[in-house]
Amino acid sequence: MNQTYDVLAIGNAIVDVIVAAPPEFLSERDIAKGSMRLISAEEAETLYAAMGPGREISGGSAANTVVGMAMLGARPAFVGRVARDQLGEVFTHDIRAAGVDFTTAPSAGGNPTGRCLIVVTPDGDRTMNTYLGACQELTMADLDAAMIAASGMLYLEGYLWDPPAPRAAMETAIAVARSAGRKVAMTLSDVFCVEGHRADFQRLLAGHVDLMFANENEACALYQTRDLTAAIAELRQHSAITVITRSEKGAVVVANGETHVVAAETPARVLDTTGAGDLFAGGFMAALVQGRSLPDCATAGCVAAAEVISHYGARPEADLQALVKARLG
Amino acid sequence: MNQTYDVLAIGNAIVDVIVAAPPEFLSERDIAKGSMRLISAEEAETLYAAMGPGREISGGSAANTVVGMAMLGARPAFVGRVARDQLGEVFTHDIRAAGVDFTTAPSAGGNPTGRCLIVVTPDGDRTMNTYLGACQELTMADLDAAMIAASGMLYLEGYLWDPPAPRAAMETAIAVARSAGRKVAMTLSDVFCVEGHRADFQRLLAGHVDLMFANENEACALYQTRDLTAAIAELRQHSAITVITRSEKGAVVVANGETHVVAAETPARVLDTTGAGDLFAGGFMAALVQGRSLPDCATAGCVAAAEVISHYGARPEADLQALVKARLG
Repeated sequence: MNQTYDVLAIGNAIVDVIVAAPPEFLSERDIAKGSMRLISAEEAETLYAAMGPGREISGGSAANTVVGMAMLGARPAFVGRVARDQLGEVFTHDIRAAGVDFTTAPSAGGNPTGRCLIVVTPDGDRTMNTYLGACQELTMADLDAAMIAASGMLYLEGYLWDPPAPRAAMETAIAVARSAGRKVAMTLSDVFCVEGHRADFQRLLAGHVDLMFANENEACALYQTRDLTAAIAELRQHSAITVITRSEKGAVVVANGETHVVAAETPARVLDTTGAGDLFAGGFMAALVQGRSLPDCATAGCVAAAEVISHYGARPEADLQALVKARLG
Repeated sequence: MNQTYDVLAIGNAIVDVIVAAPPEFLSERDIAKGSMRLISAEEAETLYAAMGPGREISGGSAANTVVGMAMLGARPAFVGRVARDQLGEVFTHDIRAAGVDFTTAPSAGGNPTGRCLIVVTPDGDRTMNTYLGACQELTMADLDAAMIAASGMLYLEGYLWDPPAPRAAMETAIAVARSAGRKVAMTLSDVFCVEGHRADFQRLLAGHVDLMFANENEACALYQTRDLTAAIAELRQHSAITVITRSEKGAVVVANGETHVVAAETPARVLDTTGAGDLFAGGFMAALVQGRSLPDCATAGCVAAAEVISHYGARPEADLQALVKARLG
């Protein structure tokens, strides 16, 4: 069958509202620094009112990933739900302008477009407060089976496992992709996602997923261990390729019983770490599409991550293709 | 009478959509690089569709100015019109979070909140395509005479002379301020504004305005000359203080028959010149409120302008107060 897209991603369609603040802004509100949590419309309003002036830049984890892939020459599509409002227009404009096919119909009359209130502390760490809004209204009816079957890989965002309708849509998408002989990739997204969906994620890894991304905390949480070596020993038993990101310590790829350790790339500066994991996955999968080796895929991921943490916002600003080429040829 | 505010500004309430693009993006569309032009909702849509991914940061010329003043310790208020929509909420949040009193009621059912599609070329130059939307719906009914009378200075944006209802509101505001014994300041904003309202602006300068900001092109356009010295000779004949900004050449203050020449401050880098003039005016007026000398006011303006051109967006990011203090003590 024809392959129209290299990857089709399903994820949250979110606009980020980025605000710089001291760590006390978080501690005074009992918000765990560096975490992602879901907030209600009411809490979003209260928190926004307390925040300083912001800047709005399109985000969403899987959306960031496929934008990175498009910039690296891959052909991605994205499925996610915005509302028929101004932030929905902004999200739609930005992802299309980046070269990603995005045709999910906006919802009308429901919740507004999702937004993530991101507090960036002076160390570059980001703390995300996500109001999902319209994102949760994604259903199976928004999926196009032919589009999934025409995509080399399906890529799923762990964050979207929380709301029930999108979760059901993703389970259906996995079945469609597998029956079409396509690959399935996913990211565990966040420790709290893993805590909430451990059994689901373990089941997926045991036979439904070909490629899994996790940071070291998420990988450890999956097996309820604090020892990364123990987590890797568990991951080795699956046929899926698992890629573990370790921030400034680089990444580990576990595949076919082998473990590849790759060093991080040094960023120009660390201003805002939002999107580091997303862009790592984007760099990795774009290199995979090009047929590069697994260690080179991980290095491409590190190059993309280093770019995105050097400025505000989780969408790349520099020419990623030139950066990867300069590093890997 | 009590002075509640140091300055009350009337201006466009606008959210900027900032996109980096090569100069060809402009030349292919016959858009004059470095200019500001007003566009319709339809053209805004067409142009936005052709633009790359953007970032949204609150803007508006006079709004930028008073945000800068608030950051420098002055007490400003702002009057301008947004709609009851998401970009209106963003504008309202950001200006209030910056410490500016802003209470103009949002319009409902009219045009959406105004936005400015800003194309930033690699030389840092900005080309502004402004859809005024709700901004034009500001009327005299939105003015609070007591608030104007309780403000040490009224500050008016030349851009807002184009739509008739806001222009009438500003003329009324001038009368209220003068009858309360308050000062009136204005900026000529843009060469096209001067071309369109030369007689008006000359009349205001001849007896209704105490402080006028213009860049050298605007000052020359006011007197239909290409010779800045000739323009300055004309300006000397008015009792108003006029301040002429000259980008990297600094500024000239014409007051009481004297001319003060002030050098520019060197920015860390030039990334996006949007807001340079706005922040110059903010730095100048904040220093004036503090009782500094006119040359020091101009230097404070240059410090604020140098900060804002070193990053994307026309709202300051660094601690302006510390920067001015480090320069002037």
